[in-house]
Amino acid sequence: MEKKPGNHLIYVQSLLSQENMPKVGIVDTTFSRINMGKIAIDELKKGSSIQIERYTVPGVKDLPVACKILIEEKGCDIVMALGMPGSQPIDKMCAHEASQGIIQAQLMTNIHIIEVFVHEDEGKDETELAWLMERRTREHARNVIKLLFNKEQLQREAGTGQRQGFADVGAIR
Amino acid sequence: MEKKPGNHLIYVQSLLSQENMPKVGIVDTTFSRINMGKIAIDELKKGSSIQIERYTVPGVKDLPVACKILIEEKGCDIVMALGMPGSQPIDKMCAHEASQGIIQAQLMTNIHIIEVFVHEDEGKDETELAWLMERRTREHARNVIKLLFNKEQLQREAGTGQRQGFADVGAIR
Amino acid sequence: MEKKPGNHLIYVQSLLSQENMPKVGIVDTTFSRINMGKIAIDELKKGSSIQIERYTVPGVKDLPVACKILIEEKGCDIVMALGMPGSQPIDKMCAHEASQGIIQAQLMTNIHIIEVFVHEDEGKDETELAWLMERRTREHARNVIKLLFNKEQLQREAGTGQRQGFADVGAIR
Amino acid sequence: MEKKPGNHLIYVQSLLSQENMPKVGIVDTTFSRINMGKIAIDELKKGSSIQIERYTVPGVKDLPVACKILIEEKGCDIVMALGMPGSQPIDKMCAHEASQGIIQAQLMTNIHIIEVFVHEDEGKDETELAWLMERRTREHARNVIKLLFNKEQLQREAGTGQRQGFADVGAIR
Amino acid sequence: MEKKPGNHLIYVQSLLSQENMPKVGIVDTTFSRINMGKIAIDELKKGSSIQIERYTVPGVKDLPVACKILIEEKGCDIVMALGMPGSQPIDKMCAHEASQGIIQAQLMTNIHIIEVFVHEDEGKDETELAWLMERRTREHARNVIKLLFNKEQLQREAGTGQRQGFADVGAIR
Repeated sequence: MEKKPGNHLIYVQSLLSQENMPKVGIVDTTFSRINMGKIAIDELKKGSSIQIERYTVPGVKDLPVACKILIEEKGCDIVMALGMPGSQPIDKMCAHEASQGIIQAQLMTNIHIIEVFVHEDEGKDETELAWLMERRTREHARNVIKLLFNKEQLQREAGTGQRQGFADVGAIR
Repeated sequence: MEKKPGNHLIYVQSLLSQENMPKVGIVDTTFSRINMGKIAIDELKKGSSIQIERYTVPGVKDLPVACKILIEEKGCDIVMALGMPGSQPIDKMCAHEASQGIIQAQLMTNIHIIEVFVHEDEGKDETELAWLMERRTREHARNVIKLLFNKEQLQREAGTGQRQGFADVGAIR
Repeated sequence: MEKKPGNHLIYVQSLLSQENMPKVGIVDTTFSRINMGKIAIDELKKGSSIQIERYTVPGVKDLPVACKILIEEKGCDIVMALGMPGSQPIDKMCAHEASQGIIQAQLMTNIHIIEVFVHEDEGKDETELAWLMERRTREHARNVIKLLFNKEQLQREAGTGQRQGFADVGAIR
Repeated sequence: MEKKPGNHLIYVQSLLSQENMPKVGIVDTTFSRINMGKIAIDELKKGSSIQIERYTVPGVKDLPVACKILIEEKGCDIVMALGMPGSQPIDKMCAHEASQGIIQAQLMTNIHIIEVFVHEDEGKDETELAWLMERRTREHARNVIKLLFNKEQLQREAGTGQRQGFADVGAIR
Repeated sequence: MEKKPGNHLIYVQSLLSQENMPKVGIVDTTFSRINMGKIAIDELKKGSSIQIERYTVPGVKDLPVACKILIEEKGCDIVMALGMPGSQPIDKMCAHEASQGIIQAQLMTNIHIIEVFVHEDEGKDETELAWLMERRTREHARNVIKLLFNKEQLQREAGTGQRQGFADVGAIR
């Protein structure tokens, strides 16, 4: 882990002009109780030269087609699908259907869509839920940056028990 | 939220002639116990210049292909899929299969299909069920208008805990 | 409901020669305990000028591809998929998988496939089961006729709580 | 049922030369505890002139693509997908996923894939399990022959409560 | 089983130059607590002349599209999808969705993707979990080698109750 890829990364990015900078799609919902799209954009813009295409839809079941539209009609190189499924059984089913659609959209386009779902009952109260939603969104935004600019870093983290939101559990050995 | 986009919207719409007005598909069922299609059309026509293409099918499992036909053969720019799944386990499964098909139809066409399902057991009695079905249908019709004419409004509502039918839960912070 | 579309319908049908009469595909199974295909054909032929293409397969999981073959290789304009899933959990799963495939086949062809499934445990005994299977099949056959010749009638029935088999539950208001 | 189609069948088959004999794909697994592929081939070769293309994969989740490869790259006219899912909940889920894939493969190719799954817990002991696996495999092999050479026989059996493995339950009336 | 295919295999491989050696894709995750990709590569390289294309993604839901990218953009002849789903119900659902996507990716490409999933709760403690993950990965890597170079060996193992990880259960008869 001692090798620092940062300088190389900054050099490569400085060669990019606006029009060939990677474009990241951000899809979020009005159903969510936190502005996940805003948090994702804030994190993505820290030190990375990327273009952002944002699209807000009503709920998680509207995410798959919105992601596909951003990929095929707006030229996004990767998309984040941000949602907060509710806590009832019907909400769990909606999240499941949305996830299936998000995987299908990726297979139809060969483009990654990083799904960031925080279930409303994952936090023990509203404070923890808000904290978790922000943290998971930011950590997955950093995964997006790695997928765009630094796949080697992901490979170095293979099998290390990374988690997005709560603490990493780490490698077994 | 103080900015009013209404005037701009009306101006844009006045430029549209009949033939290039957006076309909204409305698919509903004979299984439903409320005429959801009629309610949706009533709400959509309030102040918006749109064309309507309506299609009634027997049940929710017939919705996906009907939506796809309206998109591909009738040129709809967006579709509402309106249904009232029953309260038995088999009905829940039918609704699940219908929802998967509706998401798939969207991915095959890159067109939004706004699913408005009210489960028969969501209301504590017939009165509440009827109230809920009308209200959810109307609120989703307004989402359709926003997706067609005013995506900026949806983005302003990102993360604000919007609900269709029962009261909004609001943002956490 | 006082308007009778019947005369108009008969007139239109009399203009049709054999080769451009609509073709209805009928797919049923050897697993079923009632000859659903025969019942469907009997009902469809009452007063309607249609061609029939029948295809019997072993079980419900064989229905999706059989329906698609009838559509794409036999030119069917609509198909009925008739099945009697068993009462065990594994049978419920088979029915679910079959239903997903039937929806997918419709999305791949833009043609309606009216699924008529009667679960073996829906009747309290064999007599009621047989009664239910016949009645649901006949009522869905009439839906097929409406989809082919009289979509306006379906629209008039929108939201009226129609059921196929047991009694209609009716509209709430 | 007194009509014997056998002589006609034998006559038709005698006209077939090796290269235009129907080709049946057989896919089975190393996970299964009985050599289902061998049994299927033995049954298929009784009195029918067909070509066999066999393909063994590790487990049931590998069946869908293997079936599709046999259809699209080996020219099979029909395929048998043979598997013995285990008895744990995770095994049931694997079987469900495999079944969905097998239905999807059929829809992508318009070719029947006859799924023969025997769950490890369907037999009360190993002896019954082995008996059931052999019998279900053989009975489905005969369905394959009917689908290839004698669809009329399947239609005659419509609604007669056929089962593969355990005893037929018969028609209700 | 006394026949040794090894010598023949080595001879065939010696004829292969670097550029037409089969290419195996390896996709694993940062979520896993063991470096499954490294283990798979170690096993694959034992005595086989193959090229490796590795790709690490955050979690199991990112596997399907990564596999498809390796097949369609990197020319892999087969892919291993390596993951360790967590022990919570939501993790089981993620694994299910990932598995559906992996099967779908295979059907879209006619290329095998060998899924190697070890659920975090399959081991009674971390030691057994680590042992199981390594062993299942290695055994499936050997299945990959058989699918590439020695399909006859798989056929010889048909119906012999092979397991990857825990002990084989063997044939019933």
